[in-house]
Formats: sequence, C-alpha cells, structure tokens
Amino acid sequence: MTATLDVVGIGNAIVDIIDNTDDGFLARHGMVKGAMTLIDEAQAEAIYAAMGPAIALSGGSAGNTIAGLASLGAKCGYIGKVRDDQLGQVFRHDIAAAGVAFPTPAATEGPATARCLILVTPDAQRTMNTFLGACVNLHPADIDEALIASAKFTYLEGYLYDPPHAKEAFRKAAAAARAAGRKVALSLSDSFCVHRHRESFLELLKTIDVLFANEAEICALFETEDFDAAVEAARAAVPLAAITRGAAGATIVSGDKTVGTTAAPVAKVVDTTGAGDLFAAGFLFGLCREAPLAECGRLAALSAAEIISHYGGRPETPLSEYVVAAAG
Amino acid sequence: MTATLDVVGIGNAIVDIIDNTDDGFLARHGMVKGAMTLIDEAQAEAIYAAMGPAIALSGGSAGNTIAGLASLGAKCGYIGKVRDDQLGQVFRHDIAAAGVAFPTPAATEGPATARCLILVTPDAQRTMNTFLGACVNLHPADIDEALIASAKFTYLEGYLYDPPHAKEAFRKAAAAARAAGRKVALSLSDSFCVHRHRESFLELLKTIDVLFANEAEICALFETEDFDAAVEAARAAVPLAAITRGAAGATIVSGDKTVGTTAAPVAKVVDTTGAGDLFAAGFLFGLCREAPLAECGRLAALSAAEIISHYGGRPETPLSEYVVAAAG
Repeated sequence: MTATLDVVGIGNAIVDIIDNTDDGFLARHGMVKGAMTLIDEAQAEAIYAAMGPAIALSGGSAGNTIAGLASLGAKCGYIGKVRDDQLGQVFRHDIAAAGVAFPTPAATEGPATARCLILVTPDAQRTMNTFLGACVNLHPADIDEALIASAKFTYLEGYLYDPPHAKEAFRKAAAAARAAGRKVALSLSDSFCVHRHRESFLELLKTIDVLFANEAEICALFETEDFDAAVEAARAAVPLAAITRGAAGATIVSGDKTVGTTAAPVAKVVDTTGAGDLFAAGFLFGLCREAPLAECGRLAALSAAEIISHYGGRPETPLSEYVVAAAG
Repeated sequence: MTATLDVVGIGNAIVDIIDNTDDGFLARHGMVKGAMTLIDEAQAEAIYAAMGPAIALSGGSAGNTIAGLASLGAKCGYIGKVRDDQLGQVFRHDIAAAGVAFPTPAATEGPATARCLILVTPDAQRTMNTFLGACVNLHPADIDEALIASAKFTYLEGYLYDPPHAKEAFRKAAAAARAAGRKVALSLSDSFCVHRHRESFLELLKTIDVLFANEAEICALFETEDFDAAVEAARAAVPLAAITRGAAGATIVSGDKTVGTTAAPVAKVVDTTGAGDLFAAGFLFGLCREAPLAECGRLAALSAAEIISHYGGRPETPLSEYVVAAAG
C-alpha cells in the first residue's frame, strides 16, 4: 500500500522552558553541561525557582524532528502523551499548527505535562533538566497502528526508554511498522540515555533501518573512545547510520558507502537546543524524497543551522524557505 | 519616610503568546495592525487555533515596564491578578525571577490567567488580542497600600480601565501614593483604550505626575490630529509628559522645558512588542536616580532598543549591561 504519510514520530511530549545562564549556575546546581538529566517534580520546582525569566515553547526530541519535517513540507504524525492542562494545550497547539496529526489523547489524571528546563550558556550549549510528568502515562494502547502503517518511516527517540511503559509502546510501534513493510529510524538521544539503556539499544539495533547518533552517543553505545571504530561498528550494525559531530559536520555510513557532510554556516550560534533533532528532520526528509545520501546530509545540515540560530528547538523560519534561500 | 522601593507597577497580568504572521492573516481575522483588541475566551481559542507554532513568555504592559526597571537595577513591586494555573505560575515565576516583589494572591476560581495573542508581521509591528481572563478579578482589596507607600513612583497602565473593578483599584492605588507623598505615573497604553476611557483619563490627569503616551494616544486623548497641539495640551495638563513617536524618537515636556530624544539604533527591528513599556522603564529609572530629562530620555530609548531587537516585551540582555555597552 502506498504510504500516505512521510514520518510518524514517537517521543516524550515536552514543553521547553528556556533561559540564559552562566557556567556558575550549572556548577552550583551540579548540572552536566550539554546533558539531559531526569528530575522529579520537586527538583523541577527548585530549578525553575532559581532560573531567571524564561520563554516557553514546545519541544521534545521527536516532537522537534517532526515539526521540522513538517516545516520542510513532509506529511507527518506524532504520538506522545500530555496532560489536559495549559502546557498540554500549548504542545498540542504547536504540533497541530505545524500541520502534524497528533491523535494521542491527553491524560485526564496523573502528573502534569512534561517540562524541560533548559539552561543556555554563552557558548550556546544547552543543558537540559527534564521532568517527565505525563510522559510516564504513554502506554502501548496509545500506539495507533494504522497511523504507523501509513507512514514511510516511524521515528523513535531513545529518550522513550526512560518512562516505564513507553518501551513497550516503542516496541509495538516498531513491530507495526515492520509488519506494514515500513522503515524504522532511531535516535540515540543522549549519551547518558545510552548508558542507562545500552543493552536494550544494542538488541534494538537489529530491527532498525536508520540510526541517528552524535559522537558521544555512538561511542557510548559501542563502548569505545575511538570515533572511527564506533562509526565502523555502526556500519556493521545497521543499514544506514548518520553520526553528527557538531560544528565538525557528520559522517554517513551505509554498507560500503561513506559520505561526509559539513556543517552549514550560521551568522551566530545562539542555542544548540534541537540541533540533533533537526539534523534528523532534514535527513529523513531527504530519504522520504529518495534523495542521494549527500543531499540528505545537506538538508540535515541546513535544518540544524536554522535551529541553532535562535532559541528553542522548533523552526522560526519555514525550513522549506530556509533551504531554498541557502541554495540561492 | 525614605522610599525603600523605586517603582510599584499595577497592571493586567498577562502571558504573551507570540507568533510570526503576514498581513493576510490580520486581514482575514479583521485585526487592526498595531492595536490591542479585547477578545473573549471563545475568540481567544479561535485565534490561537489559527495561529502557527508560538512562543510564550510573560507580558502585560506594566509587567514589562517593571521587569525592565528591575533589569536596569531598580527595586520594584508589582500588583496584578493571575489564576492558580500553569500560565499564572509562569507569570509569577518570571516577575519573581526579575527580582520584583509580587504580593497579589492568585485567584482560586474564575477565568484562567490572561493571555495576549500577539501576531508579529514582517514589518516588526505587533498586533495584540487580549483575553483578560483572571485580570477581571483584580479588586481594590488587592492594592497593598503599604507597598504603594514604600515606592517613589506608582506606575499605572491605562489598560487597567478595561477590567470592571480595576479602575477602583487604580484609584485606590493613586490615592495611597499621593497620601504618602509619592508620585504617580500613567501610561495611556493604546489609542483604542484612550477612546474607550477618554473622559476618565482626562479627569485622572489632574492627579498624575508623569504621563507616558505615543503619538496616536496623545492625539486621541486631546482629540486633535496635530501632534504639536497634543504635546502642548499635555504640557498644560501634567507636570511631566514623555510622548513617543517610534523611530522618530520622543518629545519630553515639563513646564517650559522641551527635550527631544532620538531613537537608539538597533541592528534589526524584530518585534516592537513592549517598545513603549520599556521606554517608560528607562525613563522612570532615570527619574528615580534624579537624572536630567535628557538622560532619562537616553535611558528610555536604549531600553526600548533592546526590547525591539528580539521577540517579546521582557529584556533578554540585562538592561544594566546593555546601557553600559551602548555607552562604551
């Protein structure tokens, strides 16, 4: 059957609360710069109270990727759990306004919509503290198998392994995609997340078509400090892997093919939140259009460039226009 | 008694929801570009549903002014009504994080925290649609007379005349300030707001020490299309008036003194939300420090310049640093 959607993403549905800070704030709160740390509600309140005036906007790794794909012109769906509260309405509004189908019902009880408290330091690094909130209520029953079957790709974020039931939801979605003859893409999300779930991820790789990771994540997964060795392990493990290295670009490996991608220039890097998510968006957009890997990499680099030029992980400029402008 | 605070602001406590759009969106929704229109909850939901992905951050005219003053280094308080919901928590967090005392209890019933749906067009103009929500529950009982008496200035936004009971709260605050020998400043807020409450504002001017208005507002107040005539009417009506003209700068009149202020340069005007609010912040900061009027105007222009260089009406760069950097 012809796919009617390009990509369905599944992830932790999160509203980002973003503030500028300095390295001293991170040190005083024992935060690891650049990492994503899980926090409970009491910690979330304590950190929020210590943060300066902030801006709020929808986030979530797969949410950012799907919003980016939609901004490039792809047809997309999203599965994730919010609560029926104001931040849940914000998340739902933003993903719907991006033109994305979002059929998952909001939880009517339990914890509030998830928040990620993001501290951006002057070096544009983002340090994330996530209160999973309502995400813990994502269950296999939320996986709309018909939606999954209608999409060329199902995109899963590794962060999904943190909430208790989402792993089952994750596996159900991957199985539904394969049963429908579709492809499955996975992002490793964060090196600490890889450490938490390394054995599961290694097992999972056997059923993944496309793997996204950055240098720290791929090295954590294959327990090596040698980037080239990690890349070769990825080549052997999955049909296609795109490994990002920040400003140093990315390496794409598939069978005996190796393609390098350079980072796209930006006038000023403001906030790296969403850089990996948007790299995945551009790359998947290329794959959906059956573009050569080099073109997929170019679209990925441009999408990441737009997102790091402003605060937040959702595009400010329609990416379809941004990509055209960059080519012109 | 020596004042322990510089300024207490009273206003509609609002969370801004900001999105880029084009002139066609404004036309399709019958919006008047640059104006603030009051909407009900159903209209708020309809407009929000039609808006693209947005960012949320604290706003409110006097809230922006007070946050700006705090960012310049002033000691401030704020009085305004939110509900005990997530957006109310966002508002409370942001004003507290700016270092501002905010003693007003949240409403525990009634409408949700106020929202202003702001559409920013490519010309950087902002068009505002305000659902007053919990602001209708600001009552005279919320006026902390001891807080008012402790501040050199009480700053009131004209928008306060829109909710039903806030006018009484407004008058109680002004009376408390005068009884304590303090000064009262008023912003006319919006030309449509002036039309709605013109007679009340004219009566109120008799008790105001400092008046802030833009060209459209001052002309609406004195029912003239002649800017110079409106300025002379303002000179006759109040001890001190600062009348802004956007990129054309501002005219400050006090008795027989007239001081011109030029707009401070910015690399790119992104969003004019809060320009008037931050002009007032800089100006009041100068007055609190007993600076000459020309210096008050310079601080006002610089504060406005920072705010129009990014989205939203709250400073991104600490204004105390911004002002120093501009001088250097």
